[in-house]
Amino acid sequence: MKKTGCRYGTHRVISPEGVLPQAALKIDNDMDIYDNEILVDVIALNIDSASFTQIEEEAGHDTEKIGRKIMEIVEDRGKMQNPVTGSGGMLIGVVEEIGDALKDKIDLKAGDRIATLVSLSLTPLKIEKIMDIKKDIDRVEVEAKAILFESGIYAKLPKDMNENLALAALDVAGAPAQVAKMVKPGDSVLILGATGKSGMMCAYEAMKRVGPTGNVVATDLREEALELLLKNRFCHKAFSGDARKPVEVMNRALEMNGGREYDIAINVVNVQNTEMSTILPVRDGGIVYFFSMATSFTKAALGAEGVGKDVTMVVGNGYTKGHAEITLQELRESEALRKIFEELYV
Amino acid sequence: MKKTGCRYGTHRVISPEGVLPQAALKIDNDMDIYDNEILVDVIALNIDSASFTQIEEEAGHDTEKIGRKIMEIVEDRGKMQNPVTGSGGMLIGVVEEIGDALKDKIDLKAGDRIATLVSLSLTPLKIEKIMDIKKDIDRVEVEAKAILFESGIYAKLPKDMNENLALAALDVAGAPAQVAKMVKPGDSVLILGATGKSGMMCAYEAMKRVGPTGNVVATDLREEALELLLKNRFCHKAFSGDARKPVEVMNRALEMNGGREYDIAINVVNVQNTEMSTILPVRDGGIVYFFSMATSFTKAALGAEGVGKDVTMVVGNGYTKGHAEITLQELRESEALRKIFEELYV
Ligand SMILES: NC(=O)c1ccc[n+]([C@@H]2O[C@H](COP(=O)([O-])OP(=O)(O)OC[C@H]3O[C@@H](n4cnc5c(N)ncnc54)[C@H](OP(=O)(O)O)[C@@H]3O)[C@@H](O)[C@H]2O)c1
Ligand SMILES: NC(=O)c1ccc[n+]([C@@H]2O[C@H](COP(=O)([O-])OP(=O)(O)OC[C@H]3O[C@@H](n4cnc5c(N)ncnc54)[C@H](OP(=O)(O)O)[C@@H]3O)[C@@H](O)[C@H]2O)c1
Repeated sequence: MKKTGCRYGTHRVISPEGVLPQAALKIDNDMDIYDNEILVDVIALNIDSASFTQIEEEAGHDTEKIGRKIMEIVEDRGKMQNPVTGSGGMLIGVVEEIGDALKDKIDLKAGDRIATLVSLSLTPLKIEKIMDIKKDIDRVEVEAKAILFESGIYAKLPKDMNENLALAALDVAGAPAQVAKMVKPGDSVLILGATGKSGMMCAYEAMKRVGPTGNVVATDLREEALELLLKNRFCHKAFSGDARKPVEVMNRALEMNGGREYDIAINVVNVQNTEMSTILPVRDGGIVYFFSMATSFTKAALGAEGVGKDVTMVVGNGYTKGHAEITLQELRESEALRKIFEELYV
Repeated sequence: MKKTGCRYGTHRVISPEGVLPQAALKIDNDMDIYDNEILVDVIALNIDSASFTQIEEEAGHDTEKIGRKIMEIVEDRGKMQNPVTGSGGMLIGVVEEIGDALKDKIDLKAGDRIATLVSLSLTPLKIEKIMDIKKDIDRVEVEAKAILFESGIYAKLPKDMNENLALAALDVAGAPAQVAKMVKPGDSVLILGATGKSGMMCAYEAMKRVGPTGNVVATDLREEALELLLKNRFCHKAFSGDARKPVEVMNRALEMNGGREYDIAINVVNVQNTEMSTILPVRDGGIVYFFSMATSFTKAALGAEGVGKDVTMVVGNGYTKGHAEITLQELRESEALRKIFEELYV
């Protein structure tokens, strides 16, 4: 075991110098760990969908060629980062060894089954052999080892639920966990894109947090999906509308909150140009939370200024302490939510 | 006077329907005000630099043609929004009339000299005559009227300082005002891009707020500009470095804070790829404030997750209550800051 490395893994960056592992073109995938690293015996790689599609097309959908391409990338870079899309994915594996300097600091032991929640695009990886490629779910079963840095985040896979169910929820774990920490009893909360994967988890969590004196209002495109939310009490009220139409959304939203502006708005829509619909319904001093990766920084900053809104706008951080536990707990608590997730995402 | 309009001015949008005035192609510039609007007798337009350059080039640098182009745009759109760049600018004028519904709610009266702090790209404007065009400072002196909506923000021009000095400071008012509200006694604060226009104001304000037990560390490219900050006690410590090199910046920054991570980092750099340098030095639970318009939403969101940082990342809002007063107050308090601003920006 080697002496302590950088908690962000910069000690493994080979080139270019001075960057973090994600930005690196080549990282050191020697499987002799540093004393603040975790060695993982990999079971399967869940390749990012954009990356898998690109490789599959380049390989003319030939399974063997896909495998060869993946081996090549990992040999070349020391990590599974698609050079065209830049993206990675996540992995599932069993903890094999934990560095001495980490052992007593973390709640993990050899033999635990985990999913990594940091991207493969920064994870040192060495593949011995590809066992199977499941093209329909972008999954590659392997004999391989990987390394997690001290800053690397992961979740222990729960024993009480289907692995794919857990993975579907963990994929969006940041959003509901931030909602759990931010929403207070009595708050009024507007959720845009509320019938989506993260939207439903956020709505469920917001309902729990606002308590009987709060008001959770859901909006999305499709009426029937909103009906499902209402029926299951994942929100108090709902209206369908296009989040790219700010005036319409604001008017409907205020109507559903007794004419008052909201304490918090949460954006989990997956299309562009929805910044103003998220900002306008919120009161001065309130919080606007953008999780959507389609959010434009400048549209948010200049938009709020243009309408003189003194709101705090937050960039949705995919990580917050305990995010995996908070998210999995939702599926344990709510049979309704679990059933919907099983139907839609497993 | 007409009855109350929408506080965001949507009652003046002609086309397309359902958008806010900024996104509109044509707005109503009838100068008979609604009872929640302010009528301004315009003295001069300060055209946004990108817009002015475009018009000037299209007009072959001919002053008369520039004037004709500006008249055309305003006749066509009802506002001075460059159709190529989409941008506006700000205006200076004298308050002529305040709607009855607003009169008693705001600290403004007819005769007050103001600068509007919302963009011309959303401000109803009618130009009678162009008096002069000052090409070197993108300024157009006019006989014109303009309208401020209820949500429109403005600043009374101070009588105790040069107008251009006030305008230079007001241009970046959001950043120092947010610092004033966010930074607490004892905080450690890292400022990236600290020798720039907003950087200096942020550093000065942070020093005031952290008090004797805090630590304000400035970083920027140029050593001699940092010397000026140190000499004037606008920061406790400083180091030069490239904010596109996160590992280097993190190491130097931690060194200057006794090895500890920061409570707050403020990014006012004007180049891309500085997200990680802002995120890495901050402690879990700390705040990362992005003012730079070169910030990428996805780089910030995915970057923080990749290094497992549980930080709150905030989109710098150009507006916060009292931002103009807070900012102008800095120039009144600090003769050193005022002198530097006069030398550099007036
Ligand atoms: N930073 C983070 O940690 C984090 C965490 C979770 C999610 N995210 C991001 O959040 C976004 C949503 O993720 P997701 O997995 O929840 O996606 P999703 O399941 O596809 O949900 C998106 C929802 O938005 C709705 N929508 C689309 N266009 C709309 C419009 N014009 N007006 C109103 N609603 C509209 C969709 O409705 P239809 O289905 O009818 O089209 C869908 O219900 C993504 O950008 C994702 O990357 C980020
Ligand atoms: N949202 C808001 O309300 C708000 C308010 C204020 C400002 N802003 C934004 O904040 C940014 C800065 O504005 P500003 O007027 O202060 O600009 P500025 O005066 O040009 O300041 C930018 C500073 O960043 C420095 N810099 C450039 N490249 C760097 C690098 N690689 N590493 C470290 N420092 C570097 C510059 O140094 P050199 O001069 O040596 O190049 C300069 O000192 C702009 O994007 C602006 O739009 C937003």
